[in-house]
Amino acid sequence: MANNLLIVVLLVQSSLVAGIDINRVRKQVASYKDVANRIIDLSLNGAAQNQSYNRLATFTDKFGYRLAGSQNLEDAIDYMLEALKMDQLENVHGENAVVPHWVRGDESAVMLKPRVHKLPMLGLGYSVGTGPQGIKAEVIVVKSFDELEKRATEVPGKIVVYNQDYHGYGISVRYRASGAAKAAKHGAVASLIRSVTPLSVDSPHTGMQDYQSGIKKIPTACITVEDAEMMWRMAQRGEQIEVFLNMSAQNLPNKISRNTVAEIKGSLYPEQTVLVSGHLDSWDVGQGAMDDGGGAFISWQALSLVRQLGLRPKRTLRLVLWTAEEFGGVGSQSYFNEHKAEVDTMSLVMESDIGTFTPTGIQFTGNTNATKVMSEVVQLLKQINASNLDTGGEGTDISPWMKAGVPGASLANMNQQYFYWHHTNGDTMTVQDPVAMNLCSAVWAVTAYVVADLDEVLPRDNHIHVRVALH
Amino acid sequence: MANNLLIVVLLVQSSLVAGIDINRVRKQVASYKDVANRIIDLSLNGAAQNQSYNRLATFTDKFGYRLAGSQNLEDAIDYMLEALKMDQLENVHGENAVVPHWVRGDESAVMLKPRVHKLPMLGLGYSVGTGPQGIKAEVIVVKSFDELEKRATEVPGKIVVYNQDYHGYGISVRYRASGAAKAAKHGAVASLIRSVTPLSVDSPHTGMQDYQSGIKKIPTACITVEDAEMMWRMAQRGEQIEVFLNMSAQNLPNKISRNTVAEIKGSLYPEQTVLVSGHLDSWDVGQGAMDDGGGAFISWQALSLVRQLGLRPKRTLRLVLWTAEEFGGVGSQSYFNEHKAEVDTMSLVMESDIGTFTPTGIQFTGNTNATKVMSEVVQLLKQINASNLDTGGEGTDISPWMKAGVPGASLANMNQQYFYWHHTNGDTMTVQDPVAMNLCSAVWAVTAYVVADLDEVLPRDNHIHVRVALH
Repeated sequence: MANNLLIVVLLVQSSLVAGIDINRVRKQVASYKDVANRIIDLSLNGAAQNQSYNRLATFTDKFGYRLAGSQNLEDAIDYMLEALKMDQLENVHGENAVVPHWVRGDESAVMLKPRVHKLPMLGLGYSVGTGPQGIKAEVIVVKSFDELEKRATEVPGKIVVYNQDYHGYGISVRYRASGAAKAAKHGAVASLIRSVTPLSVDSPHTGMQDYQSGIKKIPTACITVEDAEMMWRMAQRGEQIEVFLNMSAQNLPNKISRNTVAEIKGSLYPEQTVLVSGHLDSWDVGQGAMDDGGGAFISWQALSLVRQLGLRPKRTLRLVLWTAEEFGGVGSQSYFNEHKAEVDTMSLVMESDIGTFTPTGIQFTGNTNATKVMSEVVQLLKQINASNLDTGGEGTDISPWMKAGVPGASLANMNQQYFYWHHTNGDTMTVQDPVAMNLCSAVWAVTAYVVADLDEVLPRDNHIHVRVALH
Repeated sequence: MANNLLIVVLLVQSSLVAGIDINRVRKQVASYKDVANRIIDLSLNGAAQNQSYNRLATFTDKFGYRLAGSQNLEDAIDYMLEALKMDQLENVHGENAVVPHWVRGDESAVMLKPRVHKLPMLGLGYSVGTGPQGIKAEVIVVKSFDELEKRATEVPGKIVVYNQDYHGYGISVRYRASGAAKAAKHGAVASLIRSVTPLSVDSPHTGMQDYQSGIKKIPTACITVEDAEMMWRMAQRGEQIEVFLNMSAQNLPNKISRNTVAEIKGSLYPEQTVLVSGHLDSWDVGQGAMDDGGGAFISWQALSLVRQLGLRPKRTLRLVLWTAEEFGGVGSQSYFNEHKAEVDTMSLVMESDIGTFTPTGIQFTGNTNATKVMSEVVQLLKQINASNLDTGGEGTDISPWMKAGVPGASLANMNQQYFYWHHTNGDTMTVQDPVAMNLCSAVWAVTAYVVADLDEVLPRDNHIHVRVALH
């Protein structure tokens, strides 16, 4: 998942306003118990056991990481289109989207003073390079933006190293996102940011960053927690620190990529849709197996399980595997722009992009009546201990729909260690567990199927508060 | 800590056989309550607060890692000798020890088939190199030595990749220790071993390995858990895997290094000794701040706290900072060979080499009467929740003394995450916590001081069972 720093409260109009009879809903949802159990059994014990894990392993072992703008991602999309057709899903096709084409190139950083020490690092998305001669400069280490502001006169000509403490991803990612711009404003020549993680084994993390218009673009990268802390200690002792940074990163002209789409057409209201999604692109590290291979493949599996059982809900189930999420939800925004006429017929948008560890239920954002319906739906997941209904259904790729009033759902899971591997070379199949993925697929399939098959679309109203998550 | 695979049960003679009056011991140990509290207070809240952490940070930030045989380790030893003198300890000196001189040199591994993928790796101690042309070979992946034996006819000419599961360090380290020899026996040209750790962020771990006499020495390294698992999955799918391995590792002629010694001479029985120790050498990764900077510096701190309080126990407190532990307790064995005449006057040998996280007490190995005494001593640590007396006092560097019948103690601490960073570039000051080190120093100082000041030496008998720990 990319980072998204907006907190948006929107007042939107919707044509779908409904009251509900909770007893009727309860009874209706309860009638899905058998079909829910069949889905769960197929995923956990049946022919589809470990299928999402095995499909993802085959895919990620074959392609590795899949950076937006790369030929490798397009090859991976071709593979997926073929795989979805082979899985007998319907209306399988790609939809073009214009995406950024940033390339990392060779990069390295070395501390030269007070002693020579190689600094493992990863350049950040959209970063410019240093030029072929690199940048050799003295370092100033700060713990916060406040400290940077207070010491602004010391910054010109230096490399700013941020050694911010970790106070959770949502807070600490601000240093990765805007550290370069804030340093450049005071005349820094580059910025190195402590990786945003609660645990490190000398592991640099990459991610997106935003330059500010009117402020010089300077090269920027993440270094390890270990090295940021070491340089901070050295600076506290009054030692002079010098670093040589070499980055050949480039922002090349945009490319055409594709969102990958497949469906199970609705039997009664084919024009109404439950959208199930994850993103297929990744950073250019690891295998992108966690971020967001897991989310993409349990979303495929949700439709696959329904198809394997020969089920066809009243509404259409639509799988979308987004492109270029990591560069700021680029593919999903493009898709929304093309499809926004469907806002009124979009019943629910679902996105899994915060891990596919052991699931605990669904995170949901919708109005009171919709929440009541979803509270009943998750009861169908009690036998697999995934019947929690939490708040926070938002996600980068479904946020355009949610801002337009569509209810949204995310997969709640035991992702406490997610940021250990987020945007690192450790984001591989080792993080994934087949049993957890069986469970996630079942949660995702039951939720999507039942919502798509209920007599009525999920209620919504004209006052919806969307808080875009900090991913 | 190095690995040591021996399990030894010894029957030894000792001149010190004593019965104890437990009530008298209890009363005597309880009389140290005030002095124990003064030590604890000095370490936690007084002038020595954070001293061991700060001393270690200054040291490791200055020298980084300290491989046996390197000039950097000798410079670090010179620094320590000076620091111990500055700290007003007595009889500060180095004692020569002949140590191996293995150098890693440049090294790299790349998977060439089924796709090109760089394999992060770390060559293992004593490994030979590949020669300048490297080794390009097909891979056979096995999960166990049993599988290797069963598939022995497939091994000739191949690189053996071990993807053993992690069943705790003590068990799984056998693959690192003897994987090369077992593979070479069947004609392998190199071996790559899954790093021995319960958690990985694409992190290779190094360590020692043992060739077998009469079997060809082949290059051997650890790769990451992620890559071992990936190649195993690929092999399960029937894909052909090819790896190019390049290692310029060399075993050079032995060097002279030094064990670093300092004392507080005993007031009444100066010839009797409590030995407090950790090792100063490290692998050539990270900063060696955990393995074993922490153990070495809380051992220094134990004597330093006693000295700062102006205390002088009846027996001598002797600090020894071992050299070349990582190559198999080389420095400590050399020291024992020179000092074994002191076996009868050595009251207790203490070693901290399994982490300096929050302490829980002491691990102790001695006879029943000695255990009774130590059970009383740890009561003095109740106020800091470190009054557990566990079994398992053994450690690589004190094992020669323990085999000769001397009771031994190790620092019990909450080291559940120890192997995340063990022998990796993540072994840095980031792992250490100043408050935990204050507590560890207090535990170590109170234990050493009280045992050195009791009216009688710790009981021992002529039947002592020493099980050398798998470190």
